[in-house]
Amino acid sequence: MSKIFLTDTTLRDGSHTVSHQFNPDDVMKVAAALENAGVNLIEIGHGDGLTGSTINYGFSKYSDFDLISAASSVLTKSKLTVLLIPGIGTVEDLEMVRKCGAKAVRVATHVTEADISEQHIKAAKDMGLFTVGFLMMSHMASVERVTEEALKMESYGADVVYVTDSGGAMLPKDVAAKIGSLKKNLKVPIGHHAHNNLGLAVSNSLTAIEAGATYIDGCLSGLGAGAGNTPTEMLIATFDKMGYEHDGNLYKAMDASEDVLKPIVEGKGLKLKTNSNSLMIGYAGVYSSFMLHAQRAAARFGVDARDILMELGRRKAVGGQEDWIIDVAYELAHK
Amino acid sequence: MSKIFLTDTTLRDGSHTVSHQFNPDDVMKVAAALENAGVNLIEIGHGDGLTGSTINYGFSKYSDFDLISAASSVLTKSKLTVLLIPGIGTVEDLEMVRKCGAKAVRVATHVTEADISEQHIKAAKDMGLFTVGFLMMSHMASVERVTEEALKMESYGADVVYVTDSGGAMLPKDVAAKIGSLKKNLKVPIGHHAHNNLGLAVSNSLTAIEAGATYIDGCLSGLGAGAGNTPTEMLIATFDKMGYEHDGNLYKAMDASEDVLKPIVEGKGLKLKTNSNSLMIGYAGVYSSFMLHAQRAAARFGVDARDILMELGRRKAVGGQEDWIIDVAYELAHK
Repeated sequence: MSKIFLTDTTLRDGSHTVSHQFNPDDVMKVAAALENAGVNLIEIGHGDGLTGSTINYGFSKYSDFDLISAASSVLTKSKLTVLLIPGIGTVEDLEMVRKCGAKAVRVATHVTEADISEQHIKAAKDMGLFTVGFLMMSHMASVERVTEEALKMESYGADVVYVTDSGGAMLPKDVAAKIGSLKKNLKVPIGHHAHNNLGLAVSNSLTAIEAGATYIDGCLSGLGAGAGNTPTEMLIATFDKMGYEHDGNLYKAMDASEDVLKPIVEGKGLKLKTNSNSLMIGYAGVYSSFMLHAQRAAARFGVDARDILMELGRRKAVGGQEDWIIDVAYELAHK
Repeated sequence: MSKIFLTDTTLRDGSHTVSHQFNPDDVMKVAAALENAGVNLIEIGHGDGLTGSTINYGFSKYSDFDLISAASSVLTKSKLTVLLIPGIGTVEDLEMVRKCGAKAVRVATHVTEADISEQHIKAAKDMGLFTVGFLMMSHMASVERVTEEALKMESYGADVVYVTDSGGAMLPKDVAAKIGSLKKNLKVPIGHHAHNNLGLAVSNSLTAIEAGATYIDGCLSGLGAGAGNTPTEMLIATFDKMGYEHDGNLYKAMDASEDVLKPIVEGKGLKLKTNSNSLMIGYAGVYSSFMLHAQRAAARFGVDARDILMELGRRKAVGGQEDWIIDVAYELAHK
């Protein structure tokens, strides 16, 4: 199994959720936390792509250029990427964001309209940007048609081509068929971007990987348009449990969600969609009633409650063995 | 593929979410809406099982007997079921709820302790109840051990045996292996109960069905302990899209969630976890921006916005074809 590369789009697809009101300070904090969590590509800008801030798509509070410059000032490892929809963003916009620090671009078209990405993909490659082709609403075309359009993007020079389930409408078998066909017919790596409308975002991402995808998208806590994207921290948790090679760090992704994104989102009157405590219960495989005891023991012994839960999972503790929690906390504090 | 039977546990596992404060009126409304939506078994009672209302597990506002009598008074087709954990509930309690109208019981034990279900499963069968064996925390035991314990429940007389992922800790491959082994080794039907901690509840349910399970659990809007259960309406939506045979009705399940459960839950200061509009977008496979236009056209022409979206999905409408929405609404109103 090849290494998986994570793209987090909290600051782009997630910007729909906050009506494009992220400010440069929000963006710097979230981008830094995502880099710290090992995310490979961090996407930033208006939800509808570069310079989408219009009366049609909703005005951003700050220009994409301001936000990208802010993020760029804090990133050293992760690639800063933008989304460009030909017809909304232009080659000139792309040249501008490159100067602001963008290292990559995802050129997005409707699944049957890859033709209109040619000029932008070629221009992006000429600028030295890492360039991704992004086939939106991929559920609407047949396997053959998606493959044909993906081959076009590859021929224009795309470094990666994505099957993008913009409507969250794809079943696992549909993901497997389309990703599998791209894997077979293209030379470049394949990516998958899911939405959670049918509750299948995490598993469709895993199905995509099994079928050959190596680029996968998420948002912290599943922020994102409509039902939201795949929660980045759930992707990292399931990648760990599946034994995939990746750069993500689960605890740091949870912290990015709970400590960094949550106050920003709540400050705008909204709530996160997920809860890291319940994710941790599933990850460690322990009783949910252990959480409160583990948090108390963690505070008392100065250890991480999550490490306690992981050890309880390894020991296969069951209900009634809550006394083990203190033992484990003590051992963790003294090792 | 065999027919799938849905059990909804909004009024039992979901009662954790409302701290066991459902009242008889809530229960009657939700149970009637679930029956109307084609749910086969409706589970009612304290989250921790029959007579779980104690200082340990949290007191219910109303006794299980009151809630079950209330639900029983409105049900004619769906089987009213209770959950019984030996050690919390007793055979006497079971006799009482049978008199109140329960037609089924799920006898639940830790995955390695099926032995303690013998007396209760046999007593339930003697009372003429439809009896389900429920192996909780099934992620903690090996495939061989789960199979061994399931065979015990079958030998006591269970009509169905469940692999219950109480911690939401199972990966798709784990579900496939355990359900597959039970299917191979038991004669009775197999069930699966998922939690959404890793975001895999819907897909694990589909994986269970592919591996041979025919009994699947959900809660409206994914209400339920911790990260919640599998959203019943997402199960019905994916069953439809997969072409499975089942009795569920998607629109009525969405209505049960939005029109019946939502005001009850919001009245207790909580929010639903899902949104039927975004589910509908994924189900119909259309642009999320179509929703508002479809709702306006639906109001103007007196049709269901969901039917408009379904027709737009069939016609493969794309962004920019919003004018089709009026055409479709007009046609639906005049056919």
